[in-house]
Amino acid sequence: MRTSADVGFVAADVAATLDRCQRATKPALQRAIAELHPQLALIGAYHQGWCNADGSEVNANGGKAVRPTLALLSAEVAGTDTTVALPGAVAVELVHNFSILHDDVMDGDRMRRHRPTAWTVFGTGLAVLAGDALLTLSGQILPRGLGSRSSVAADRLTCAVSELILGQAEDLSFEQRSDVSIGEYLAMSSHKTAALLSCSASIGAVLAGAPPAAVEELATMGRHLGMAFQAVDDLLGIWGSEDLTGKSVFSDLRRRKKTLPVVAAINAGTAESRELARTLSRADLDEDEVGYAAGLVEAAGGRDRARREVDSRLNMALDSIDRIEMPAQTRAELAGLARYLALRKT
Amino acid sequence: MRTSADVGFVAADVAATLDRCQRATKPALQRAIAELHPQLALIGAYHQGWCNADGSEVNANGGKAVRPTLALLSAEVAGTDTTVALPGAVAVELVHNFSILHDDVMDGDRMRRHRPTAWTVFGTGLAVLAGDALLTLSGQILPRGLGSRSSVAADRLTCAVSELILGQAEDLSFEQRSDVSIGEYLAMSSHKTAALLSCSASIGAVLAGAPPAAVEELATMGRHLGMAFQAVDDLLGIWGSEDLTGKSVFSDLRRRKKTLPVVAAINAGTAESRELARTLSRADLDEDEVGYAAGLVEAAGGRDRARREVDSRLNMALDSIDRIEMPAQTRAELAGLARYLALRKT
Repeated sequence: MRTSADVGFVAADVAATLDRCQRATKPALQRAIAELHPQLALIGAYHQGWCNADGSEVNANGGKAVRPTLALLSAEVAGTDTTVALPGAVAVELVHNFSILHDDVMDGDRMRRHRPTAWTVFGTGLAVLAGDALLTLSGQILPRGLGSRSSVAADRLTCAVSELILGQAEDLSFEQRSDVSIGEYLAMSSHKTAALLSCSASIGAVLAGAPPAAVEELATMGRHLGMAFQAVDDLLGIWGSEDLTGKSVFSDLRRRKKTLPVVAAINAGTAESRELARTLSRADLDEDEVGYAAGLVEAAGGRDRARREVDSRLNMALDSIDRIEMPAQTRAELAGLARYLALRKT
Repeated sequence: MRTSADVGFVAADVAATLDRCQRATKPALQRAIAELHPQLALIGAYHQGWCNADGSEVNANGGKAVRPTLALLSAEVAGTDTTVALPGAVAVELVHNFSILHDDVMDGDRMRRHRPTAWTVFGTGLAVLAGDALLTLSGQILPRGLGSRSSVAADRLTCAVSELILGQAEDLSFEQRSDVSIGEYLAMSSHKTAALLSCSASIGAVLAGAPPAAVEELATMGRHLGMAFQAVDDLLGIWGSEDLTGKSVFSDLRRRKKTLPVVAAINAGTAESRELARTLSRADLDEDEVGYAAGLVEAAGGRDRARREVDSRLNMALDSIDRIEMPAQTRAELAGLARYLALRKT
């Protein structure tokens, strides 16, 4: 069995892949967002890292473009020019940005990618409306009348959005509960994060007319990758470097988010599990208490459990990639991206 | 020319039409909402007036079901059983409810239909997420794979949603401005309110396979009706009875909303226009000042201008109804509904 230790990747190669796909997607994404009401277009551009709050141009970190990259690579699986997958790449990125704009409002997050979140800059109302606009735009990018491939892609995207909303509802409801099982966590993660990655990793193949078996295997690959991605997020949310992630450390613990390390630790049935549950049930946790809770999560095996989830999901994703016929270059790029996403520090 | 004074309608007949269509739509609407995450389904049901915040059943005012009624009547224009239009009726009602859930958050409205708004009961985050869920659901109700009628209907709905979001952005941006022209107001009203009424008034005809000319005339009729509807809303927002509308009186003025009476009054070029602009530019308006502003709006002719808009739009809607071939019973119900919407007090 492969473990994260021995599945290396060349960071520069992955960066080149992400950069190439981000560049390929950006013009169409910019054109789509520019069609919105000027105020909403400004929020969309700010959120993407294209401009400051006053509209002045900037080249800030607007995310890694993981979803458009998966969409374009999935078209290359079919051996075609990726142009056919561009609307899919734009659509999944729009959905991702819709979900972040709204999630930041719901979670009250004030910083993202080292910049103030949109709602703190433009107000809650306009941030919500900008999210609505991006979601609606994502439904208009894939022209439904133009043949069944586009129609199938649009349906798959709508299903992913529906799962994503379900997952966010589950995640929010977990914050009020102390008895979340690992199974419930995994279902939430599958809905909230993995559904859109699964859609991203297959939508280009759908648009390129890849064989149904390849499409489904890519969707499975994306689902595993999404589960790994969320578990990595959970690990970084407790033990990540604030300098690298741009999010405040321990904030997930402070908010009683039922991340995999926490859920696994609480369900481990050890003395540390019980002490952790007691600690997290207190009203307001100060810095020391949150640090103490993080230590308990680790002592109860929560950190290891999450790392094992990442390893096993990465392996399943790599197995899926092995099973699909595709050009050698695409295989190398997909596998490299999968490894990078599972081993990232940011 | 007809005026609102001489185009009477029988309230009991309109109530019967609305009631019949609401009953026809409710089971499918309930089934759709029940599929959501339990917390989101609860918010949807609360918002529809089907239950209290704790989930206990109630029969509260959940709106007049104007949009589903228009959708079902538009199918009757084609002379068919309205069953074929049910997905359209459910979809437009879902979009309407999405927009209200989000608008109440953006506008900070605390009361609607004599009940606390969803965000005040369930929190901003969950109200936003419930809106997202209803919007996404609306895109899943019209099965896209099942023939071109459903596909055309889905595309028209997405366009209406896109206009609605544009209109809300325009409306919000107008609050910061004192130089909104009547033309800009009319464009905003067309986007924010009339687009969805236009879609509602034609979506059933699309699904029933009515001739394109009839579909477009119905869409035009719905557009005029929507413009009248918004102007009535504007009038009720200043001079309506709080007991009937369930909204606090003068709240539109207090928020500097650029409603038609206000925009028309400010653009009238009279001494009252200038005094109104001065009054509305003050930081915080107390009860007396808002009442004074309402008087200035009326003195500058804003109230009359809005009433004329209602009359003229109602007449154009009735003219459209006259031009479309349809069963006599449908014609009577559509015309009655149009008159009711233009003359309503709530």
